[in-house]
Amino acid sequence: MAESGSMALSLRVSTLALPLRHPFRIARGEASVARTALIRVSDGSHEGLGEATPVARYGESVESVAAYFAAHPLRVHDPMRLEEALAGDIPPAARAGLDLALHDLIGKRLGVPLYALFGLDPAKTPVTSFTIGIADTATTLRKVAEIGDHPILKIKLGLGTDAEQIETIEAIRSTYTGTIRIDANEGWDVPGAIRILRELERFEIEFCEQPIPAGDPAGLRAVREAAGMPIVTDEDSLTAADLPRLYGCVDGINVKLAKCGGLRGALAMIHTARAMGLRIMLGCMVESAIAATAAAHLSPLVDWADLDGPFLTAADPFEGIAYERGKIVLPDGPGLGVRERAPA
Amino acid sequence: MAESGSMALSLRVSTLALPLRHPFRIARGEASVARTALIRVSDGSHEGLGEATPVARYGESVESVAAYFAAHPLRVHDPMRLEEALAGDIPPAARAGLDLALHDLIGKRLGVPLYALFGLDPAKTPVTSFTIGIADTATTLRKVAEIGDHPILKIKLGLGTDAEQIETIEAIRSTYTGTIRIDANEGWDVPGAIRILRELERFEIEFCEQPIPAGDPAGLRAVREAAGMPIVTDEDSLTAADLPRLYGCVDGINVKLAKCGGLRGALAMIHTARAMGLRIMLGCMVESAIAATAAAHLSPLVDWADLDGPFLTAADPFEGIAYERGKIVLPDGPGLGVRERAPA
Repeated sequence: MAESGSMALSLRVSTLALPLRHPFRIARGEASVARTALIRVSDGSHEGLGEATPVARYGESVESVAAYFAAHPLRVHDPMRLEEALAGDIPPAARAGLDLALHDLIGKRLGVPLYALFGLDPAKTPVTSFTIGIADTATTLRKVAEIGDHPILKIKLGLGTDAEQIETIEAIRSTYTGTIRIDANEGWDVPGAIRILRELERFEIEFCEQPIPAGDPAGLRAVREAAGMPIVTDEDSLTAADLPRLYGCVDGINVKLAKCGGLRGALAMIHTARAMGLRIMLGCMVESAIAATAAAHLSPLVDWADLDGPFLTAADPFEGIAYERGKIVLPDGPGLGVRERAPA
Repeated sequence: MAESGSMALSLRVSTLALPLRHPFRIARGEASVARTALIRVSDGSHEGLGEATPVARYGESVESVAAYFAAHPLRVHDPMRLEEALAGDIPPAARAGLDLALHDLIGKRLGVPLYALFGLDPAKTPVTSFTIGIADTATTLRKVAEIGDHPILKIKLGLGTDAEQIETIEAIRSTYTGTIRIDANEGWDVPGAIRILRELERFEIEFCEQPIPAGDPAGLRAVREAAGMPIVTDEDSLTAADLPRLYGCVDGINVKLAKCGGLRGALAMIHTARAMGLRIMLGCMVESAIAATAAAHLSPLVDWADLDGPFLTAADPFEGIAYERGKIVLPDGPGLGVRERAPA
């Protein structure tokens, strides 16, 4: 039986600093520590955990998330009033953090894991890819060797000459027989994307993510028609409202909680993408087990997962999502099922 | 706390015969009794109620629904495994009946009304329209007089000459100051729709539903551009997958549980339509309080409601949804909150 929603909810924000195992480089920059905002929403009996992962490209920071919540008290006393709590113009990472914390609290009150609240079978999770950032070929090959039995790799491209990028993939493919996805993070232009993707075709690439800068559906369509592999968007598809203009231009989308505003926004994207006949990847940022586990609860609904955040960090204070040779294993506890690790 | 899902679920189908207050006539035909299939799913402790309303136009009948369930035993032991229970090729009305019964059972197990499980505020329900079928002008005016304080009417058109249809609306507008919607149920062709809608514009019509036969998005676009009122589809928009091809051609859609396969299918349609910038109406068939109440639980998410089924039937054995001058009032009980009336 659900408890009454009459007790006031309190919300706290703190900073979560996540040291990275390896400095992580993509076409836009490099980082050695990831900083996210930890959200705790309590009703006095239960505490819901959320994580807001600010995306600098979209103007958010841990400080802006904290400032948002300082200026905007919770609108609801009952965590089940999700629509009202999440209505209006909330910045995406802050919205995701609040959405996750409220979902976690709802699941804990009802005694039900989130996958069950979403009607899903926890055995139907996909295998996640493991992401390899941009590095010289020797470093890249060393990383591939370290994780060589992982069945799916996602290789970041989009920086350097065509020859360098092709050499990277050629070198990986010479030692690695698993599935390879690539992600250019907007690093190419249309002719460049077509040129390089035609070269890469021979290495059996599963798909290419965001080959060109966001905002050019016709360009995506041209790349898709010329490239010998499926095209998936990320920076072009932040929320469900971004999808209709991509109709007929791409094969799939990457759904990230930090961009679409959490589980509720992700469900809207998944439903819209399915209606459009698109394939769906669930991705994450460099973030803790809170956000990765939240995404994992929706993963039985999608085709592809790129939920490797927990592989990339060195001292995550939370645990939840697990993996069996890359296949996502969902925790069974109520809500997110995320636990705080005892301090070392 | 949720109960264990290990106890087997049993499902029963029976016929629900709903005598109508007035024989109901639309462009396609006339009826005096509505027959639907009542679905009961029990776990031994709780019983979930569902209703499958067959739509003859799409080849279903009460008998075909019963035959479907006789041939296809439930696939799940746990009602929360909705995705698995509803996967694959289930005929829409049968799917809706099963979806409703499982949702009702889940809500009863968790002790939570469905609106709360969907994260919604029960105060945010819309006002429903009251539908008036096709009749001669005197009969129509008598019906309008009977329900003259109802704030929204939906008038069925699509049969007879232009002059007769215009006369009907003119006569209603001369005595009625509330909101008027019209529904042609595919009864016009493109030039005919443009001709009659331009004439009707002066009577302040809120929108026109399904002016032309389904399957002609370009025709809808032409009608929409020429008509002085919003165009909403019904027969053209059965499921979420029907929506992308309507992009830019219409202003809104009617969502009906019996066509989209229940609450889960309706949520997918609502999310997809919102992403496309469409307005949303929730409609019903001539059916009992079970199906109308189920739709009502989603109604805080939509712009318009046409949930007047309970006004049209004379001896509904169930009660749930209520109305305050047309504004939908949701029951507070767990699940659907529908109760079986004591036999008279």
